[in-house]
Amino acid sequence: MKFSVLTLFPEMYSTFCGTSIVKHAIERGITEIECINIRDFSNNKFRHIDDTPYGGGAGMLMQVEPIDKAIASVRQENSYVVLMSPKAKPYKQADARRLMNKEHIVIICGHYEGLDYRAEELIDEKISIGDYVLSGGEVASMVVMDSIIRLQKGVIRDESLDEESFDNALLEYPQFTKPAEYKGRRVPEILLGGNHAKIRLWRKKMALYETLKYRKDLLRGRKFSEEEIRLLHQLKKELEEGKDPLYTYEV
Amino acid sequence: MKFSVLTLFPEMYSTFCGTSIVKHAIERGITEIECINIRDFSNNKFRHIDDTPYGGGAGMLMQVEPIDKAIASVRQENSYVVLMSPKAKPYKQADARRLMNKEHIVIICGHYEGLDYRAEELIDEKISIGDYVLSGGEVASMVVMDSIIRLQKGVIRDESLDEESFDNALLEYPQFTKPAEYKGRRVPEILLGGNHAKIRLWRKKMALYETLKYRKDLLRGRKFSEEEIRLLHQLKKELEEGKDPLYTYEV
Repeated sequence: MKFSVLTLFPEMYSTFCGTSIVKHAIERGITEIECINIRDFSNNKFRHIDDTPYGGGAGMLMQVEPIDKAIASVRQENSYVVLMSPKAKPYKQADARRLMNKEHIVIICGHYEGLDYRAEELIDEKISIGDYVLSGGEVASMVVMDSIIRLQKGVIRDESLDEESFDNALLEYPQFTKPAEYKGRRVPEILLGGNHAKIRLWRKKMALYETLKYRKDLLRGRKFSEEEIRLLHQLKKELEEGKDPLYTYEV
Repeated sequence: MKFSVLTLFPEMYSTFCGTSIVKHAIERGITEIECINIRDFSNNKFRHIDDTPYGGGAGMLMQVEPIDKAIASVRQENSYVVLMSPKAKPYKQADARRLMNKEHIVIICGHYEGLDYRAEELIDEKISIGDYVLSGGEVASMVVMDSIIRLQKGVIRDESLDEESFDNALLEYPQFTKPAEYKGRRVPEILLGGNHAKIRLWRKKMALYETLKYRKDLLRGRKFSEEEIRLLHQLKKELEEGKDPLYTYEV
Protein backbone atom coordinates (compact mmCIF):
# COMPACT_ATOMS: atom_id res chain seq x y z
CA MET A 1 0.00 0.00 0.00
CA LYS A 2 1.02 3.59 -0.53
CA PHE A 3 0.93 6.68 1.70
CA SER A 4 1.18 10.20 0.31
CA VAL A 5 1.88 12.65 3.12
CA LEU A 6 1.09 16.31 2.45
CA THR A 7 3.09 18.38 4.90
CA LEU A 8 5.09 21.56 5.45
CA PHE A 9 7.96 19.46 6.84
CA PRO A 10 8.67 16.57 4.45
CA GLU A 11 12.25 16.33 5.80
CA MET A 12 10.79 15.24 9.14
CA TYR A 13 9.94 11.81 7.71
CA SER A 14 13.41 10.74 6.58
CA THR A 15 14.38 9.15 9.90
CA PHE A 16 10.89 7.65 10.36
CA CYS A 17 11.13 5.99 6.94
CA GLY A 18 14.73 4.91 7.56
CA THR A 19 14.28 3.06 10.86
CA SER A 20 13.03 -0.28 12.13
CA ILE A 21 9.90 -1.90 10.72
CA VAL A 22 8.96 1.02 8.47
CA LYS A 23 12.37 0.80 6.81
CA HIS A 24 11.99 -2.98 6.33
CA ALA A 25 8.46 -2.61 4.93
CA ILE A 26 9.69 -0.05 2.40
CA GLU A 27 12.76 -2.11 1.45
CA ARG A 28 10.60 -5.19 0.87
CA GLY A 29 8.21 -3.21 -1.32
CA ILE A 30 5.29 -3.73 1.08
CA THR A 31 4.82 -0.04 1.75
CA GLU A 32 5.60 3.12 -0.17
CA ILE A 33 5.70 6.53 1.51
CA GLU A 34 5.98 9.74 -0.49
CA CYS A 35 6.18 13.13 1.20
CA ILE A 36 4.88 16.16 -0.66
CA ASN A 37 5.62 19.73 0.42
CA ILE A 38 2.40 21.75 0.44
CA ARG A 39 4.51 24.89 -0.17
CA ASP A 40 5.17 23.62 -3.71
CA PHE A 41 1.54 24.53 -4.39
CA SER A 42 1.75 28.08 -3.09
CA ASN A 43 0.35 30.74 -5.44
CA ASN A 44 3.04 33.33 -4.62
CA LYS A 45 6.78 33.72 -4.98
CA PHE A 46 7.30 33.75 -1.19
CA ARG A 47 5.98 30.16 -0.99
CA HIS A 48 3.49 31.29 1.64
CA ILE A 49 0.53 28.98 2.12
CA ASP A 50 -1.03 30.65 5.16
CA ASP A 51 -2.91 33.85 5.91
CA THR A 52 -4.76 35.56 8.78
CA PRO A 53 -8.23 34.35 9.83
CA TYR A 54 -11.33 36.22 8.69
CA GLY A 55 -13.07 37.72 11.69
CA GLY A 56 -9.81 38.17 13.62
CA GLY A 57 -8.00 35.95 16.10
CA ALA A 58 -4.50 34.73 16.92
CA GLY A 59 -2.24 32.97 14.47
CA MET A 60 -2.34 31.98 10.84
CA LEU A 61 -4.44 29.46 8.90
CA MET A 62 -3.42 27.18 6.06
CA GLN A 63 -5.22 28.19 2.87
CA VAL A 64 -7.56 25.90 0.97
CA GLU A 65 -6.02 26.32 -2.50
CA PRO A 66 -2.52 24.85 -1.90
CA ILE A 67 -4.09 21.91 -0.07
CA ASP A 68 -6.62 21.31 -2.84
CA LYS A 69 -3.84 21.39 -5.44
CA ALA A 70 -1.54 19.15 -3.40
CA ILE A 71 -4.31 16.54 -3.08
CA ALA A 72 -4.99 16.73 -6.82
CA SER A 73 -1.28 16.15 -7.56
CA VAL A 74 -1.26 12.74 -5.83
CA ARG A 75 -4.86 11.59 -6.24
CA GLN A 76 -5.41 8.18 -7.85
CA GLU A 77 -8.63 6.32 -8.54
CA ASN A 78 -8.39 4.45 -5.23
CA SER A 79 -7.20 7.31 -3.01
CA TYR A 80 -8.59 7.78 0.49
CA VAL A 81 -7.90 11.25 1.88
CA VAL A 82 -7.52 11.76 5.62
CA LEU A 83 -6.76 14.82 7.71
CA MET A 84 -4.96 14.71 11.04
CA SER A 85 -7.35 16.75 13.20
CA PRO A 86 -8.71 16.92 16.74
CA LYS A 87 -12.24 16.81 15.30
CA ALA A 88 -12.76 13.07 15.47
CA LYS A 89 -13.30 10.27 17.95
CA PRO A 90 -9.88 9.08 19.16
CA TYR A 91 -8.22 6.57 16.81
CA LYS A 92 -8.37 2.90 17.91
CA GLN A 93 -6.80 -0.39 16.89
CA ALA A 94 -10.02 -1.22 14.98
CA ASP A 95 -9.37 1.86 12.80
CA ALA A 96 -5.87 0.59 11.98
CA ARG A 97 -7.40 -2.77 10.97
CA ARG A 98 -9.97 -0.99 8.79
CA LEU A 99 -7.46 1.34 7.09
CA MET A 100 -4.87 -1.40 6.45
CA ASN A 101 -6.98 -2.50 3.48
CA LYS A 102 -6.85 0.83 1.64
CA GLU A 103 -4.54 0.88 -1.38
CA HIS A 104 -3.63 4.56 -1.22
CA ILE A 105 -3.97 6.82 1.80
CA VAL A 106 -3.35 10.55 1.43
CA ILE A 107 -2.59 12.13 4.82
CA ILE A 108 -2.85 15.90 5.25
CA CYS A 109 -0.87 17.31 8.18
CA GLY A 110 -2.22 20.58 9.49
CA HIS A 111 -0.01 23.23 11.08
CA TYR A 112 -0.27 26.79 12.37
CA GLU A 113 -3.68 27.39 14.01
CA GLY A 114 -5.46 25.06 11.62
CA LEU A 115 -6.85 24.88 8.10
CA ASP A 116 -9.36 26.92 6.22
CA TYR A 117 -12.61 25.06 6.87
CA ARG A 118 -13.16 24.58 3.14
CA ALA A 119 -10.10 22.29 3.09
CA GLU A 120 -11.89 20.00 5.56
CA GLU A 121 -14.61 19.52 2.96
CA LEU A 122 -12.08 17.94 0.56
CA ILE A 123 -11.34 14.93 2.74
CA ASP A 124 -12.89 11.52 3.39
CA GLU A 125 -12.11 11.18 7.09
CA LYS A 126 -10.62 13.11 9.98
CA ILE A 127 -8.29 11.18 12.29
CA SER A 128 -7.41 12.21 15.83
CA ILE A 129 -4.83 10.10 17.66
CA GLY A 130 -6.02 11.33 21.06
CA ASP A 131 -7.45 14.18 23.12
CA TYR A 132 -4.35 16.36 23.30
CA VAL A 133 -2.99 19.25 21.27
CA LEU A 134 0.08 18.88 19.05
CA SER A 135 1.98 21.57 17.18
CA GLY A 136 1.28 19.83 13.87
CA GLY A 137 -0.04 16.67 12.32
CA GLU A 138 3.39 15.22 11.46
CA VAL A 139 4.13 13.02 14.49
CA ALA A 140 0.45 12.05 14.59
CA SER A 141 0.67 10.89 10.98
CA MET A 142 3.69 8.75 11.88
CA VAL A 143 1.66 7.12 14.66
CA VAL A 144 -1.11 6.25 12.20
CA MET A 145 1.28 4.96 9.52
CA ASP A 146 3.22 2.85 12.05
CA SER A 147 0.01 1.27 13.37
CA ILE A 148 -1.10 0.37 9.82
CA ILE A 149 2.27 -0.69 8.38
CA ARG A 150 2.99 -3.20 11.15
CA LEU A 151 -0.29 -4.99 10.31
CA GLN A 152 0.65 -5.47 6.64
CA LYS A 153 1.38 -9.04 5.64
CA GLY A 154 5.11 -9.84 5.86
CA VAL A 155 6.12 -6.93 8.11
CA ILE A 156 6.17 -8.70 11.47
CA ARG A 157 5.56 -12.33 12.30
CA ASP A 158 1.91 -13.36 12.33
CA GLU A 159 2.26 -14.97 15.77
CA SER A 160 3.28 -11.60 17.17
CA LEU A 161 0.00 -10.09 16.00
CA ASP A 162 -2.10 -12.82 17.59
CA GLU A 163 -1.84 -12.03 21.28
CA GLU A 164 -1.49 -8.31 21.54
CA SER A 165 -3.07 -5.51 23.50
CA PHE A 166 -6.58 -4.25 22.67
CA ASP A 167 -7.45 -6.88 20.10
CA ASN A 168 -8.98 -9.19 22.70
CA ALA A 169 -9.78 -6.29 25.03
CA LEU A 170 -7.24 -7.39 27.65
CA LEU A 171 -3.85 -5.87 28.33
CA GLU A 172 -0.84 -8.12 27.89
CA TYR A 173 0.25 -10.36 30.75
CA PRO A 174 3.61 -9.65 32.44
CA GLN A 175 6.56 -11.13 30.57
CA PHE A 176 10.03 -12.00 31.84
CA THR A 177 13.35 -12.83 30.26
CA LYS A 178 16.86 -13.62 31.53
CA PRO A 179 18.26 -13.39 34.15
CA ALA A 180 15.99 -15.45 36.41
CA GLU A 181 16.90 -13.15 39.27
CA TYR A 182 17.83 -9.46 39.16
CA LYS A 183 18.52 -7.41 42.29
CA GLY A 184 16.46 -9.80 44.39
CA ARG A 185 13.45 -9.89 42.03
CA ARG A 186 12.86 -13.42 40.75
CA VAL A 187 10.89 -14.55 37.72
CA PRO A 188 7.67 -16.30 38.88
CA GLU A 189 8.46 -20.03 39.33
CA ILE A 190 5.63 -21.17 37.09
CA LEU A 191 7.36 -19.62 34.05
CA LEU A 192 10.62 -21.46 34.79
CA GLY A 193 8.87 -24.87 34.67
CA GLY A 194 7.55 -26.49 31.52
CA ASN A 195 3.85 -26.93 32.29
CA HIS A 196 2.40 -25.11 29.30
CA ALA A 197 -1.24 -25.62 30.26
CA LYS A 198 -0.57 -23.97 33.63
CA ILE A 199 1.49 -21.21 32.04
CA ARG A 200 -1.39 -20.44 29.67
CA LEU A 201 -3.83 -20.14 32.56
CA TRP A 202 -1.42 -18.04 34.64
CA ARG A 203 -0.97 -15.67 31.70
CA LYS A 204 -4.70 -15.33 31.20
CA LYS A 205 -5.13 -14.61 34.90
CA MET A 206 -2.36 -12.02 34.84
CA ALA A 207 -3.81 -10.37 31.71
CA LEU A 208 -7.08 -10.00 33.64
CA TYR A 209 -5.16 -8.63 36.63
CA GLU A 210 -3.19 -6.06 34.57
CA THR A 211 -6.39 -4.93 32.88
CA LEU A 212 -8.17 -4.58 36.24
CA LYS A 213 -5.24 -2.57 37.60
CA TYR A 214 -4.71 -0.18 34.70
CA ARG A 215 -7.72 -0.22 32.37
CA LYS A 216 -10.85 -1.42 34.18
CA ASP A 217 -12.81 0.53 31.52
CA LEU A 218 -11.77 -2.01 28.85
CA LEU A 219 -13.73 -4.70 30.73
CA ARG A 220 -17.03 -2.79 30.69
CA GLY A 221 -19.58 -4.77 28.70
CA ARG A 222 -17.12 -7.62 28.09
CA LYS A 223 -18.39 -11.21 27.98
CA PHE A 224 -16.23 -13.33 30.26
CA SER A 225 -15.70 -17.05 29.63
CA GLU A 226 -16.27 -19.55 32.46
CA GLU A 227 -12.51 -19.92 32.73
CA GLU A 228 -12.07 -16.17 33.06
CA ILE A 229 -14.74 -15.97 35.76
CA ARG A 230 -13.00 -18.72 37.74
CA LEU A 231 -9.66 -16.88 37.41
CA LEU A 232 -11.25 -13.60 38.49
CA HIS A 233 -12.62 -15.29 41.64
CA GLN A 234 -9.15 -16.64 42.40
CA LEU A 235 -7.63 -13.20 41.91
CA LYS A 236 -10.17 -11.64 44.25
CA LYS A 237 -9.45 -14.25 46.92
CA GLU A 238 -5.67 -13.80 46.64
CA LEU A 239 -5.93 -10.04 46.88
CA GLU A 240 -8.23 -10.30 49.93
CA GLU A 241 -5.63 -12.56 51.54
CA GLY A 242 -2.93 -9.95 50.85
CA LYS A 243 -1.06 -12.15 48.39
CA ASP A 244 0.72 -10.88 45.27
CA PRO A 245 -1.02 -12.70 42.40
CA LEU A 246 2.19 -12.49 40.35
CA TYR A 247 3.80 -15.01 42.68
CA THR A 248 0.78 -17.16 43.42
CA TYR A 249 1.04 -20.40 41.52
CA GLU A 250 -2.48 -21.79 41.86
CA VAL A 251 -4.18 -21.57 38.53
CA MET B 1 13.06 21.44 31.05
CA LYS B 2 15.01 18.42 29.96
CA PHE B 3 14.00 15.11 28.34
CA SER B 4 16.25 12.06 28.36
CA VAL B 5 14.97 9.50 25.87
CA LEU B 6 16.15 5.91 26.32
CA THR B 7 15.71 4.14 23.02
CA LEU B 8 17.14 1.60 20.59
CA PHE B 9 16.82 4.18 17.78
CA PRO B 10 18.34 7.48 18.96
CA GLU B 11 18.93 8.50 15.32
CA MET B 12 15.16 8.63 14.84
CA TYR B 13 14.96 11.85 16.87
CA SER B 14 17.32 14.01 14.78
CA THR B 15 14.64 15.29 12.42
CA PHE B 16 12.09 15.66 15.25
CA CYS B 17 14.57 17.82 17.20
CA GLY B 18 15.53 19.76 14.07
CA THR B 19 12.09 20.87 12.89
CA SER B 20 9.50 23.50 13.74
CA ILE B 21 8.65 24.37 17.34
CA VAL B 22 10.84 21.69 18.89
CA LYS B 23 13.84 23.11 17.04
CA HIS B 24 12.99 26.65 18.19
CA ALA B 25 12.49 25.54 21.80
CA ILE B 26 15.89 23.83 21.78
CA GLU B 27 17.63 26.80 20.11
CA ARG B 28 16.17 29.19 22.67
CA GLY B 29 17.34 26.99 25.53
CA ILE B 30 13.77 26.30 26.70
CA THR B 31 14.02 22.56 26.15
CA GLU B 32 16.86 20.07 26.08
CA ILE B 33 16.48 16.61 24.55
CA GLU B 34 19.16 13.96 24.94
CA CYS B 35 18.82 10.55 23.32
CA ILE B 36 20.54 7.58 24.93
CA ASN B 37 21.02 4.25 23.18
CA ILE B 38 19.96 1.44 25.51
CA ARG B 39 22.39 -0.84 23.63
CA ASP B 40 25.27 1.08 25.22
CA PHE B 41 24.28 -0.72 28.44
CA SER B 42 24.30 -4.23 27.00
CA ASN B 43 26.27 -6.75 29.03
CA ASN B 44 27.66 -8.58 25.97
CA LYS B 45 29.94 -7.85 23.05
CA PHE B 46 27.10 -8.30 20.51
CA ARG B 47 25.29 -5.31 22.07
CA HIS B 48 22.20 -7.49 22.48
CA ILE B 49 19.69 -6.19 25.01
CA ASP B 50 16.86 -8.67 24.36
CA ASP B 51 16.20 -12.34 25.01
CA THR B 52 13.41 -14.92 24.69
CA PRO B 53 10.48 -14.92 27.14
CA TYR B 54 10.40 -17.39 30.03
CA GLY B 55 7.47 -19.75 29.59
CA GLY B 56 7.63 -19.55 25.78
CA GLY B 57 5.88 -17.34 23.26
CA ALA B 58 6.59 -15.29 20.14
CA GLY B 59 9.25 -12.62 19.90
CA MET B 60 11.91 -11.17 22.13
CA LEU B 61 11.77 -9.07 25.30
CA MET B 62 13.98 -6.19 26.36
CA GLN B 63 15.99 -7.17 29.43
CA VAL B 64 15.75 -5.36 32.75
CA GLU B 65 19.48 -4.81 33.33
CA PRO B 66 20.31 -2.53 30.36
CA ILE B 67 17.21 -0.45 31.09
CA ASP B 68 18.06 -0.18 34.78
CA LYS B 69 21.61 0.94 33.92
CA ALA B 70 20.44 3.39 31.25
CA ILE B 71 18.07 5.03 33.75
CA ALA B 72 20.87 5.23 36.33
CA SER B 73 23.15 6.92 33.78
CA VAL B 74 20.79 9.90 33.35
CA ARG B 75 19.01 10.07 36.71
CA GLN B 76 19.13 13.39 38.58
CA GLU B 77 17.57 14.34 41.88
CA ASN B 78 14.45 15.70 40.15
CA SER B 79 14.02 12.97 37.52
CA TYR B 80 10.59 11.60 36.67
CA VAL B 81 10.75 8.29 34.81
CA VAL B 82 8.00 7.33 32.37
CA LEU B 83 7.53 4.34 30.13
CA MET B 84 5.64 4.45 26.83
CA SER B 85 3.25 1.51 27.31
CA PRO B 86 -0.29 0.44 26.44
CA LYS B 87 -0.88 -0.24 30.16
CA ALA B 88 -2.32 3.14 31.06
CA LYS B 89 -5.40 5.27 30.57
CA PRO B 90 -5.04 7.18 27.29
CA TYR B 91 -2.98 10.38 27.61
CA LYS B 92 -4.99 13.63 27.68
CA GLN B 93 -4.28 17.34 27.45
CA ALA B 94 -4.54 17.53 31.28
CA ASP B 95 -1.57 15.12 31.47
CA ALA B 96 0.49 17.42 29.23
CA ARG B 97 -0.38 20.33 31.55
CA ARG B 98 0.64 18.26 34.58
CA LEU B 99 3.93 17.01 33.10
CA MET B 100 4.98 20.44 31.75
CA ASN B 101 6.05 21.34 35.27
CA LYS B 102 8.56 18.50 35.66
CA GLU B 103 12.19 19.55 35.41
CA HIS B 104 13.54 16.29 34.02
CA ILE B 105 11.52 13.59 32.32
CA VAL B 106 13.18 10.29 31.42
CA ILE B 107 11.21 8.49 28.69
CA ILE B 108 11.77 4.78 28.09
CA CYS B 109 10.73 3.54 24.64
CA GLY B 110 9.91 -0.14 24.51
CA HIS B 111 10.44 -2.26 21.42
CA TYR B 112 10.22 -5.91 20.37
CA GLU B 113 7.36 -7.67 22.18
CA GLY B 114 7.79 -5.60 25.32
CA LEU B 115 9.93 -5.29 28.42
CA ASP B 116 10.83 -7.64 31.20
CA TYR B 117 8.15 -6.89 33.81
CA ARG B 118 10.81 -6.00 36.36
CA ALA B 119 11.74 -2.97 34.24
CA GLU B 120 8.18 -1.67 34.71
CA GLU B 121 8.83 -1.60 38.44
CA LEU B 122 11.62 0.97 37.93
CA ILE B 123 9.36 3.70 36.59
CA ASP B 124 7.10 6.41 38.05
CA GLU B 125 4.35 6.38 35.44
CA LYS B 126 3.25 4.55 32.31
CA ILE B 127 1.99 6.66 29.43
CA SER B 128 -0.21 5.39 26.61
CA ILE B 129 -1.03 7.85 23.81
CA GLY B 130 -4.06 5.81 22.73
CA ASP B 131 -5.68 2.39 22.34
CA TYR B 132 -3.69 1.17 19.36
CA VAL B 133 -0.54 -0.89 18.92
CA LEU B 134 2.71 0.66 17.66
CA SER B 135 5.95 -1.07 16.72
CA GLY B 136 7.82 0.88 19.37
CA GLY B 137 7.58 3.76 21.80
CA GLU B 138 9.57 6.21 19.67
CA VAL B 139 6.86 8.04 17.72
CA ALA B 140 4.66 7.93 20.85
CA SER B 141 7.41 9.64 22.84
CA MET B 142 7.58 12.38 20.17
CA VAL B 143 3.84 12.93 20.57
CA VAL B 144 4.24 13.36 24.33
CA MET B 145 7.26 15.65 24.03
CA ASP B 146 5.57 17.81 21.38
CA SER B 147 2.45 18.22 23.53
CA ILE B 148 4.55 19.29 26.53
CA ILE B 149 7.12 21.46 24.72
CA ARG B 150 4.51 23.61 22.99
CA LEU B 151 3.07 24.52 26.42
CA GLN B 152 6.42 25.79 27.74
CA LYS B 153 6.60 29.55 28.23
CA GLY B 154 8.06 31.31 25.18
CA VAL B 155 7.52 28.50 22.66
CA ILE B 156 4.29 29.67 21.02
CA ARG B 157 2.28 32.83 21.62
CA ASP B 158 0.15 32.78 24.77
CA GLU B 159 -2.97 33.88 22.83
CA SER B 160 -2.66 30.76 20.72
CA LEU B 161 -2.90 28.61 23.82
CA ASP B 162 -6.01 30.36 25.12
CA GLU B 163 -8.70 29.12 22.74
CA GLU B 164 -7.69 25.64 21.76
CA SER B 165 -9.31 22.24 21.55
CA PHE B 166 -10.01 20.22 24.70
CA ASP B 167 -9.06 22.88 27.25
CA ASN B 168 -12.60 24.24 27.42
CA ALA B 169 -14.10 20.90 26.39
CA LEU B 170 -15.30 22.21 23.03
CA LEU B 171 -13.76 21.63 19.62
CA GLU B 172 -12.55 24.67 17.72
CA TYR B 173 -15.00 26.65 15.59
CA PRO B 174 -14.50 26.63 11.79
CA GLN B 175 -11.92 29.14 10.60
CA PHE B 176 -11.50 30.74 7.19
CA THR B 177 -8.77 32.69 5.44
CA LYS B 178 -8.28 34.22 1.97
CA PRO B 179 -9.69 33.99 -0.64
CA ALA B 180 -13.26 34.99 0.31
CA GLU B 181 -14.53 32.60 -2.36
CA TYR B 182 -12.94 29.38 -3.61
CA LYS B 183 -14.58 27.16 -6.21
CA GLY B 184 -18.00 28.54 -5.32
CA ARG B 185 -17.59 28.15 -1.54
CA ARG B 186 -17.81 31.52 0.20
CA VAL B 187 -16.61 32.49 3.65
CA PRO B 188 -19.65 33.07 5.93
CA GLU B 189 -20.67 36.75 5.60
CA ILE B 190 -20.55 37.38 9.32
CA LEU B 191 -16.76 36.89 9.33
CA LEU B 192 -16.27 39.42 6.54
CA GLY B 193 -18.01 42.18 8.53
CA GLY B 194 -16.55 43.86 11.58
CA ASN B 195 -19.12 43.12 14.29
CA HIS B 196 -16.87 41.45 16.83
CA ALA B 197 -19.59 40.77 19.39
CA LYS B 198 -21.58 38.86 16.76
CA ILE B 199 -18.46 37.06 15.52
CA ARG B 200 -17.71 35.91 19.06
CA LEU B 201 -21.23 34.51 19.45
CA TRP B 202 -21.15 32.86 16.02
CA ARG B 203 -17.85 31.19 16.88
CA LYS B 204 -19.18 29.91 20.20
CA LYS B 205 -22.25 28.55 18.41
CA MET B 206 -20.09 26.87 15.76
CA ALA B 207 -17.79 25.39 18.43
CA LEU B 208 -20.88 23.83 20.00
CA TYR B 209 -22.00 22.60 16.57
CA GLU B 210 -18.63 21.03 15.70
CA THR B 211 -18.51 19.32 19.08
CA LEU B 212 -22.05 17.99 18.66
CA LYS B 213 -21.18 16.68 15.20
CA TYR B 214 -17.86 15.01 15.97
CA ARG B 215 -17.44 14.57 19.73
CA LYS B 216 -20.79 14.57 21.52
CA ASP B 217 -19.03 12.59 24.27
CA LEU B 218 -17.02 15.69 25.28
CA LEU B 219 -20.28 17.42 26.29
CA ARG B 220 -21.36 14.70 28.72
CA GLY B 221 -21.55 16.18 32.23
CA ARG B 222 -20.62 19.66 30.98
CA LYS B 223 -22.17 22.73 32.62
CA PHE B 224 -23.55 25.00 29.91
CA SER B 225 -23.82 28.77 30.39
CA GLU B 226 -27.13 30.54 29.68
CA GLU B 227 -25.60 31.91 26.48
CA GLU B 228 -24.60 28.40 25.38
CA ILE B 229 -28.08 27.05 26.09
CA ARG B 230 -29.61 29.84 23.98
CA LEU B 231 -27.17 29.06 21.12
CA LEU B 232 -27.95 25.34 21.35
CA HIS B 233 -31.69 26.08 21.03
CA GLN B 234 -30.98 28.20 17.94
CA LEU B 235 -28.86 25.43 16.44
CA LYS B 236 -31.61 22.89 17.03
CA LYS B 237 -34.18 25.14 15.36
CA GLU B 238 -31.96 25.80 12.33
CA LEU B 239 -31.24 22.13 11.85
CA GLU B 240 -34.96 21.28 12.12
CA GLU B 241 -35.64 23.89 9.43
CA GLY B 242 -33.02 22.26 7.18
CA LYS B 243 -30.65 25.25 7.32
CA ASP B 244 -26.84 25.01 7.36
CA PRO B 245 -25.84 26.70 10.65
CA LEU B 246 -22.51 27.71 9.08
CA TYR B 247 -24.34 30.18 6.82
CA THR B 248 -27.06 31.28 9.24
CA TYR B 249 -26.27 34.71 10.53
CA GLU B 250 -28.66 35.02 13.44
CA VAL B 251 -26.72 34.83 16.67
